[in-house]
Amino acid sequence: MELYDGVPRELSALQKKRTLYQPELPPSLQGTSVRAVFGDTTTAVDMYSSSLIKEAFPLTHGQRLAHFLCEAEALPSSQLIRESSVNKCNYWMVRTTLHWVFYIKLLHYRRLIRDLPLLGGQLENSQQVLRLIMGTLREGKHETPRALAFMEEILTIRERVGVVFCGRQAPGGHNVIWGLHDAIRSHNPDSVLLGFVGGTEGLFAQKTIEITDEVLSAYKKSRVTSNNDAAHLAEFFSKIKCSTQVVGVPVTINGDLKNHFVETNVGFDTVCRVNSQLIGNICLDALSAEKYYYFIRLMGHQSSHIAVECALQTHPNMVFLGEEVETSGPTLQNIIKEISDGVQARAEQGKYHGVILIPEGLVESVPELNALLQEIHSLQNEGVTTENISSHLSDKASTLFENLPSFIKKQFLLFPESDNAAQLSQIEMEKLLAHLVDLEMSKRMKEGTYKGKKFSGICHFLGFQTRGALPSQFDCNYAYALGHVCFYILAAGLSGYMAHITNSKNPVNKWKCGAIPITAMMTVNQEFQFPGATAVGKLALHPAKLT
Amino acid sequence: MELYDGVPRELSALQKKRTLYQPELPPSLQGTSVRAVFGDTTTAVDMYSSSLIKEAFPLTHGQRLAHFLCEAEALPSSQLIRESSVNKCNYWMVRTTLHWVFYIKLLHYRRLIRDLPLLGGQLENSQQVLRLIMGTLREGKHETPRALAFMEEILTIRERVGVVFCGRQAPGGHNVIWGLHDAIRSHNPDSVLLGFVGGTEGLFAQKTIEITDEVLSAYKKSRVTSNNDAAHLAEFFSKIKCSTQVVGVPVTINGDLKNHFVETNVGFDTVCRVNSQLIGNICLDALSAEKYYYFIRLMGHQSSHIAVECALQTHPNMVFLGEEVETSGPTLQNIIKEISDGVQARAEQGKYHGVILIPEGLVESVPELNALLQEIHSLQNEGVTTENISSHLSDKASTLFENLPSFIKKQFLLFPESDNAAQLSQIEMEKLLAHLVDLEMSKRMKEGTYKGKKFSGICHFLGFQTRGALPSQFDCNYAYALGHVCFYILAAGLSGYMAHITNSKNPVNKWKCGAIPITAMMTVNQEFQFPGATAVGKLALHPAKLT
Repeated sequence: MELYDGVPRELSALQKKRTLYQPELPPSLQGTSVRAVFGDTTTAVDMYSSSLIKEAFPLTHGQRLAHFLCEAEALPSSQLIRESSVNKCNYWMVRTTLHWVFYIKLLHYRRLIRDLPLLGGQLENSQQVLRLIMGTLREGKHETPRALAFMEEILTIRERVGVVFCGRQAPGGHNVIWGLHDAIRSHNPDSVLLGFVGGTEGLFAQKTIEITDEVLSAYKKSRVTSNNDAAHLAEFFSKIKCSTQVVGVPVTINGDLKNHFVETNVGFDTVCRVNSQLIGNICLDALSAEKYYYFIRLMGHQSSHIAVECALQTHPNMVFLGEEVETSGPTLQNIIKEISDGVQARAEQGKYHGVILIPEGLVESVPELNALLQEIHSLQNEGVTTENISSHLSDKASTLFENLPSFIKKQFLLFPESDNAAQLSQIEMEKLLAHLVDLEMSKRMKEGTYKGKKFSGICHFLGFQTRGALPSQFDCNYAYALGHVCFYILAAGLSGYMAHITNSKNPVNKWKCGAIPITAMMTVNQEFQFPGATAVGKLALHPAKLT
Repeated sequence: MELYDGVPRELSALQKKRTLYQPELPPSLQGTSVRAVFGDTTTAVDMYSSSLIKEAFPLTHGQRLAHFLCEAEALPSSQLIRESSVNKCNYWMVRTTLHWVFYIKLLHYRRLIRDLPLLGGQLENSQQVLRLIMGTLREGKHETPRALAFMEEILTIRERVGVVFCGRQAPGGHNVIWGLHDAIRSHNPDSVLLGFVGGTEGLFAQKTIEITDEVLSAYKKSRVTSNNDAAHLAEFFSKIKCSTQVVGVPVTINGDLKNHFVETNVGFDTVCRVNSQLIGNICLDALSAEKYYYFIRLMGHQSSHIAVECALQTHPNMVFLGEEVETSGPTLQNIIKEISDGVQARAEQGKYHGVILIPEGLVESVPELNALLQEIHSLQNEGVTTENISSHLSDKASTLFENLPSFIKKQFLLFPESDNAAQLSQIEMEKLLAHLVDLEMSKRMKEGTYKGKKFSGICHFLGFQTRGALPSQFDCNYAYALGHVCFYILAAGLSGYMAHITNSKNPVNKWKCGAIPITAMMTVNQEFQFPGATAVGKLALHPAKLT
């Protein structure tokens, strides 16, 4: 019997095996110290971005690449990083096991227990647990003085490392903390690690550092992502001569934090595997039922990495990649014709089933739909109310809008995210396609050009089911190793860097570790311009599209 | 490297482990023979059904229960069942490995290969593969003479056991054939096992026995399920003095083939586990996003077994059980109020997220919606066209119908299944609830009775993703043992029986095996009456609802 989600119960053989799993570490991280080798200073990919970076990050731009090697690999120019150096650095923190400690301490609080089942069998994301616990503590509705005192005691420890989760969770994120914790603790058992609960909000609420409007304003209206925040914080700390260091970690299910330095992101492997399993199941069902076309929309924001990876794993009948669509620029009607022709050709072979994958960003890749969305967002920015939007559209946009089915009209009118991107998870593009293909096939049937059975589409959106999945072995190892790399970045006194692992397609014992200045990955992206936008061309780590 | 889906590729450690897995067998099935002990003769649960059963099954009603024990358990009255007896029975068949043989033989046929990726990484369902192969053979478009000759050679073997898959697939179904095959082959290596490709249609196309209109008519307009067919076939064979025996196996994901004899069904365990995993992931996401209510509809036809099992595993915030709703008889508005009150109460605690489970049969459990559906189906049976239905509805039904959102109106107008049940998988009850709760919360907000943030619902239907999943260990073992039981039922000369295992909640070494006359589980169910129906109160194995 073990405690699992706070409830004592017999773990399954698989669950037991998971709890015993010790992630692997690449050779350079297996010792008690690493040798840091510094490479070239960095610059931006293009000249325009480069000059903007110098302006925006006067103190932290152009830092050198860092590689972490085994201590034994004695290079003349290398710097030995070990525990002594860490003691000097100013770090925020609670040991990662904090949430376990609290967890057990607080088990008798009724409200917490009532909320726990929501975790649904998984405790991979420490942020959630911490948030739960903090929520419980903050309300102060029950006898928490001892727990609160304990929390305060930890918060007042002065040498500490702090971890902030920004954005939405990704499977494996917890292992970054685990790796960092193990590395910190193996060097100094007295060290503690603090987690900021509630993500960025928690960081601000803590008030360990005054975040001015000036700092905040840098994020507004730009493609704010966790690692952009990290770069700005590092620059800010440097400016106010605060010795606090900031390190970023590539964690996102979308797999779009990818460039000439970063190979992959924590969470992407898990999400693609879980999605592929479900798509595989649906493919089998399609073949068994022999009467449905399944339209499956996959998460991934503007980029189609998840869709392409899942397509390679599962071999659907059709897959649309946003980037391809953007390049060839078809009309919605072209896409409907392409699918309908496929349906018709298969019907001629006696097949009335199939599986079609689309990325959630597809709606922004079809030029006319994207133009419509941008017009709507622009009107919303001008303060036009939802009811009045349709009467303010241009003629072309209005014609398109009025011909859309009502469910999708409503979704198009949703307010955009803070970065002016559409609420992609809420726009049922798969339904729109299935609906329009249905109309087209009925039309062909009426005209006598299609003589098969009635078309029948079923829609799925695979997103929320996979983002909370248990991490794959790769993500467990990758995140754990990145946590260790974070420690050595701090120990080496670096700030504004991202933890970095290369050779990730090979077994763990071939992985190479290092650190990349975040500014070296920033570019100016003009693509998010839209009529009426006031902030364009902001420096950011832009989502990497398929190329 | 192994062949996997016909493509040579490296299997993962987990896949290798799965291919090596040898299902366990209960003690009574581990030897080369069993002892059959016959119990009481059987009757129907109630008097009315009993007299109908006698009338409908004059030759096969009232058979005795059979228990299969280890040979060592020598009871004076027991009958030893071993290979010799099997040789006497008339059995249709192809060895189960047939599809593997064909599979490899046919790998060079282009069309087959083009279709294979659709299997999406799984080869659990031999029916699909057989169907694919037969399709390839039938078209005769390419050089198949050798394969065809091989097929014919097998088909002409006179002593054979035939397997027919009826209805939709369930994870683990394939293991029944595996178990049966192992049992048959271990007793007589020359035995072959035939599969009827394409399910029931394949059985008819084979024309090994003339199925008259009389036999067919017994199925029409009744709650036709695979095991009802089996009982009717057994009676029919008995009537024409054909020595062919018929055995049923409890295989259905819905878990509703359940009664005082049958404990559980092959596939139910897998589907509940896969669903619970996905719901658990969604629960975690709800807690992380803190802004969505997830409405999740689960498969299961009219009964809520899957919903209740998943709710026990995942502890959602709310679950509606069709059977409960049917008993208490709320209006749709009552249900919306109940959910909205919950949303409001949680908002007062600062919570804007939650997970609500509903069974797909819920729409038929809400009295007014069910009445509306029945009216529509009845009008459809009378030949009223879809366009004219709404004008033919009664006042009450019409008022309700006109107030429904358009997407659900369209789904309500779908033609019912052959047994007059609504097309539950196509009616998005979760969307209807989310839509109406949204309206209700907006109304309360306008009236000032709700002061929280805007309600936001996201809908999921978990069905097609799970039906094609790889079977759980329980389903693997259960199906494999049932396959063995089938062999001994045939060997004992029994017909019209269902393979039967009890003590299934205990480890496999505690399982007891036997056979139940299918007629002993049949009842007359008046519940499917509806205005205008011509056939009511037919004898059938009715889906078991929650009690």
